[in-house]
Amino acid sequence: MDSSSTYLFRGLGESQMRKVTAIGKEVSMRKGQQIFKEGQEANGVYIVKKGAVELMTFVEKDFELPISILRDPGDVFGSSALVPPYQYSLSAHCVEDGSLFCMETAALRKLASEDRDIGYRIMTNLAAHFLARLKETRQEVKIHFKTLLSSTRS
Amino acid sequence: MDSSSTYLFRGLGESQMRKVTAIGKEVSMRKGQQIFKEGQEANGVYIVKKGAVELMTFVEKDFELPISILRDPGDVFGSSALVPPYQYSLSAHCVEDGSLFCMETAALRKLASEDRDIGYRIMTNLAAHFLARLKETRQEVKIHFKTLLSSTRS
Repeated sequence: MDSSSTYLFRGLGESQMRKVTAIGKEVSMRKGQQIFKEGQEANGVYIVKKGAVELMTFVEKDFELPISILRDPGDVFGSSALVPPYQYSLSAHCVEDGSLFCMETAALRKLASEDRDIGYRIMTNLAAHFLARLKETRQEVKIHFKTLLSSTRS
Repeated sequence: MDSSSTYLFRGLGESQMRKVTAIGKEVSMRKGQQIFKEGQEANGVYIVKKGAVELMTFVEKDFELPISILRDPGDVFGSSALVPPYQYSLSAHCVEDGSLFCMETAALRKLASEDRDIGYRIMTNLAAHFLARLKETRQEVKIHFKTLLSSTRS
């Protein structure tokens, strides 16, 4: 696995990447397969190797809102498994046959706490990632407010 | 400073808290004072000691959206200064006279990289914080979609 293609591993050296790779395994996925559901206890972080995965969030019965489709090798999902409350914040299902690299979070958290340099880098990358998603999502809220403002004015 | 009242320092021991406290200083603030502006290069992380601070985000000319008011001692703001791109993601201004504990981010990042245990804990707390804010903000987007859905149906 290449540290440069996966945001979570940015800044890790070769020997650190070997430690990370050692705790994961490759699993295959089939189109239509549910990988995890929003709110579930989170036991694994996933990295796309091949194929595509769609992330969605539950709005109400029979309506889930699509958040994004991941199809680039190295794309990470399920990273909310790494921080309290250790629950998936979105649902993930396969939309194109392929394979994933799966790391059990217990093993990854153990590695991060044994090798604090790995832990520091992964957590810094994760915080930066969540902040970027937070800004994007605030942007959507702003678009909503702008629409409201212009409808009030017209 | 008490580690339990500030989410960023959760899990730090007494000697670690002494190192953290040593790199900050208390500054006073007056009602109406702008502390920083969204998009500015971020040089400091702030903790409320006394008084209150309002966080806002720019929507369009003459319209800023209030995000939250922080008035509990230990409340943190400006924490986007700790991760790339090292820019404030919101604006902050004082709404009630008081004082802040201010830590220069260069010093805090240096401490976090010298003492990786401190770095790991702070970054884990920060990632959990951004994830919680991300979930809240997604919730707002969902409310918007629910409103749209019900107006389409009626």
